[in-house]
Amino acid sequence: MYKVTKPTLLLDKKKAIKNIKAMAQKAKASGVNFRPHFKTHFSKEIGEWYREQGVKRITVSSIDMAVYFASHGWDDITIAFPVNILQIDVLKHLAKVVQLGLVVDSHTAVESINAEIESPIDVYIKIDTGYHRVGVWHENTEEIKQLGEAIAEPHQFKGLLAHFGHTYSKTKKEEIQSIYSSGLAALNSLREELDKNLKISIGDTPSCSLIEKFENVNEIRPGNFIFYDAMQAHIGSCQFEDIAVCLAAPVVAVYPERSEVVVHAGAVHLSKDKLDDEQGTYFGKIVALEEKGWSAPLKGYRVIGLSQEHGKISLPKDQIEKIEVGDVLGIIPIHSCLTANLMKEYLTLRGEKIGTMHQ
Amino acid sequence: MYKVTKPTLLLDKKKAIKNIKAMAQKAKASGVNFRPHFKTHFSKEIGEWYREQGVKRITVSSIDMAVYFASHGWDDITIAFPVNILQIDVLKHLAKVVQLGLVVDSHTAVESINAEIESPIDVYIKIDTGYHRVGVWHENTEEIKQLGEAIAEPHQFKGLLAHFGHTYSKTKKEEIQSIYSSGLAALNSLREELDKNLKISIGDTPSCSLIEKFENVNEIRPGNFIFYDAMQAHIGSCQFEDIAVCLAAPVVAVYPERSEVVVHAGAVHLSKDKLDDEQGTYFGKIVALEEKGWSAPLKGYRVIGLSQEHGKISLPKDQIEKIEVGDVLGIIPIHSCLTANLMKEYLTLRGEKIGTMHQ
Repeated sequence: MYKVTKPTLLLDKKKAIKNIKAMAQKAKASGVNFRPHFKTHFSKEIGEWYREQGVKRITVSSIDMAVYFASHGWDDITIAFPVNILQIDVLKHLAKVVQLGLVVDSHTAVESINAEIESPIDVYIKIDTGYHRVGVWHENTEEIKQLGEAIAEPHQFKGLLAHFGHTYSKTKKEEIQSIYSSGLAALNSLREELDKNLKISIGDTPSCSLIEKFENVNEIRPGNFIFYDAMQAHIGSCQFEDIAVCLAAPVVAVYPERSEVVVHAGAVHLSKDKLDDEQGTYFGKIVALEEKGWSAPLKGYRVIGLSQEHGKISLPKDQIEKIEVGDVLGIIPIHSCLTANLMKEYLTLRGEKIGTMHQ
Repeated sequence: MYKVTKPTLLLDKKKAIKNIKAMAQKAKASGVNFRPHFKTHFSKEIGEWYREQGVKRITVSSIDMAVYFASHGWDDITIAFPVNILQIDVLKHLAKVVQLGLVVDSHTAVESINAEIESPIDVYIKIDTGYHRVGVWHENTEEIKQLGEAIAEPHQFKGLLAHFGHTYSKTKKEEIQSIYSSGLAALNSLREELDKNLKISIGDTPSCSLIEKFENVNEIRPGNFIFYDAMQAHIGSCQFEDIAVCLAAPVVAVYPERSEVVVHAGAVHLSKDKLDDEQGTYFGKIVALEEKGWSAPLKGYRVIGLSQEHGKISLPKDQIEKIEVGDVLGIIPIHSCLTANLMKEYLTLRGEKIGTMHQ
């Protein structure tokens, strides 16, 4: 059994493995390459759980993260972030030891790769299908074509990579389905015009969770699905009971007069990601911790404020007497990736500690 | 000179030391004890800069932080956070090696201290003067009296401790002055009723920065003032040029058509703290990096979005051609404490690395 005395990120290993298995099987059933994003868990040990499901290729979001996983046995890594040419030396070395995939959307980046990296790498052009964060706008065919042609030997223009991040603002399956379908249509139309051998790689957790069968796509790169979180439950990508992480937070103060408690769990533990509903903004869902995990969300409990170390929770008036200083409440994070990044370590329900690259 | 290839927290050591000196001198001139909060910088090395200004007593916000600074030569530490009784064993050991100050607002916490901690500690009762986060409401004199009386030998009921955190929502000097004055009046009135020997300790950076002479108070515990940030400049606690930290962020993508650039600087670097103005929400102020530091905020530049690793910056149309992939922009954080916590390390303008407890 686990024991908690301070803010601790609990990990339900069974749920996480179940989530990995479900996504791996869905990818397999659709015949697409499964290249999970490791920016959610940051952990070599958790990486092994994917390997047990047959995963051989991974996605990361930074060069440092690529170096960490490369040093722990992963030899096929895509960095799904526009190349930072100031770190081209690190990429040059990395390309010698792993099959490296890089993402570009500028001639400057392509020129840097051509000039500096000797070992053959896979280059993906990032395509913007509507999220408007990074990528060349999908209608700019000529620009994309020129960029592809600029990729020089021994490197290969491998494919078109997109992230349908605008699914995160939706909460209806049909809306997510629509973003997914129109995004894939845009990518396929581009491929038709450019080169039929190009691979299409996509990656957001809402699409990958809600779409049953992947068609006209070669690779999926979801990350968050291993843990899910309150945001994904809100979007509808998962059921609440699929969420595999929970921050255990000691109660340090109780205020019956304002029906609030304060826990040791603040912005340095949870991050300040938030959600809004008709009652206002909240920073996590409260659950009761149980020996084998945690309960459904406690009705009427809200994380209404976070400062650096404090979490402020409001709760129903008839519940406040049940809570004492020294109790431990569970908080389901809004965004598990950011919480994991801050907490740097997990504690499984069996009491095993699991480290990350941040320790 | 410093060199940057990836997201890096630049620290202008001269400004930081100037900020420390100014606050130390102001405290001295007012004859109050200066017990700076170390939850802003987290660094034993930066701690030494305070020692050079005569600082011998410090404040921290967690038991882990107390342990870190105790192991680096600090022997008079107040943990300005309600006692987490689940970690009472750690406090028991800590009390043997340092002069420990603890903050309580419940009988449960006092009983735990009485029962478990043998070495004499200083106990402060946390008083709520209007921020409504933690503390006993200042008008509940009887409750405060009983709590004080419950503190048993060898421990001492040392004082009344408050944090005027509601100054953070103000932007006018008179408003901050008013919160400060009414808060201190409440604390002094309480002391009058309870025991004239009690110490009064307060600590927010806006009050401590804007009040010229401290009266009717024994101790100040500001923390953020060493670095300041965009939030404090917005409040009016500092001038923009007093800010001592800046995140150097490599440009990885440029979009002339939407007049935006994307930098490698996201929520895992800056935190998601934000400010609002008439144009909407922003997550940092953009500056130009210079050999000896950085410029004033660049007009019309806004950090309009942060995801895990990406920072999205909009800028004036006539500026976009000046920026290229591979450039480095500076971002003044909204909340320097959270940024420092995430970055775990500083780089001075002379190129020296400075570590923290998070490495």
